Amino acid sequence: MDNRFHSFIGGDTGPWRTVALQAVSGPGLEMPPRLDVQNANVLTPPAGARWVLRGVTSHGRYTTRAEQDVLAAVQPPLGRPEATCAALIPITKNAAWWALTQDERRELFAAGAVHTRAARDYLPAIARRLHHGRDLGEPFDFLTWFEYAPGDATAFDDLLGVLRGTEEWRYVEREVDIRLVRDAVPRES
Amino acid sequence: MDNRFHSFIGGDTGPWRTVALQAVSGPGLEMPPRLDVQNANVLTPPAGARWVLRGVTSHGRYTTRAEQDVLAAVQPPLGRPEATCAALIPITKNAAWWALTQDERRELFAAGAVHTRAARDYLPAIARRLHHGRDLGEPFDFLTWFEYAPGDATAFDDLLGVLRGTEEWRYVEREVDIRLVRDAVPRES
Repeated sequence: MDNRFHSFIGGDTGPWRTVALQAVSGPGLEMPPRLDVQNANVLTPPAGARWVLRGVTSHGRYTTRAEQDVLAAVQPPLGRPEATCAALIPITKNAAWWALTQDERRELFAAGAVHTRAARDYLPAIARRLHHGRDLGEPFDFLTWFEYAPGDATAFDDLLGVLRGTEEWRYVEREVDIRLVRDAVPRES
Repeated sequence: MDNRFHSFIGGDTGPWRTVALQAVSGPGLEMPPRLDVQNANVLTPPAGARWVLRGVTSHGRYTTRAEQDVLAAVQPPLGRPEATCAALIPITKNAAWWALTQDERRELFAAGAVHTRAARDYLPAIARRLHHGRDLGEPFDFLTWFEYAPGDATAFDDLLGVLRGTEEWRYVEREVDIRLVRDAVPRES
């Protein structure tokens, strides 16, 4: 397959410098000085790594065609030169969530359609990529990676607040909030 | 996690003897004399292995609560002493399938509700377990394992015929059909 694996390596190297790490629910993680993101399935932690979190990008599990079309229209790509702030939010949902059937899980998302409205309101400023870890046997079910410009940091905090207030988030039993910055990439002139 | 990995090892050992292997769509697989099924993530093929196919059991992706309740009521467990016949059906779906959104894929399943009706009609005789391989980077997206008694072999062929006639099956670009038998396990007396 085209490589859908991504590994987040907390250690001494990488373009992203860790500025904060908060254990929101459940056990946290050691705060590493830097973070490297590799488009690979890194099974052996490199020297200096405090931890490696792995996940795969995959097809949408809940999004409808109408919602997907909205998202695709507003979602910026990763790697924008001005997006020098990033957040990695690893979460794990509890057994009650995974015992729900598809219609029950979808109903929780649809209640208020908060995700889609939040995405429409905030996504023009905030790029994101979702990675699935649960079926790999990883400690976190999901790793979401966000990138935004320093001026949009407040909007990002608002978005997280909306997500954490959803019905769905009541099933989150472990959550870590990792904030990072990198040097600006100069635009080509 | 509790180990949801399962590895199907085609080789010289294992309780299941291969009686037929058919490439239904796309490339087939070498027919091994025997098959071993391990509840483990076997990354290194053991000596004599022709191939190792891996997958994880996971939560239902499409089944509603109502459908799940019907399935749970009729579905027999794996490992019944009389179920000395088995089939392993690895399939891969094409890119068009994976580009569909959740509601579009679900619509294809719901059209006729063939899966649930087929399950209700055939599942009392046929045990089955679905394994997901796509997000592991495996060559097959799904591995379905079936067990049934010799007297239910015709019912199993009927079930497969129903599944292969569904709208959803038009997205299958690779399918291998492997049939196996084992010695009867004597019931404890």
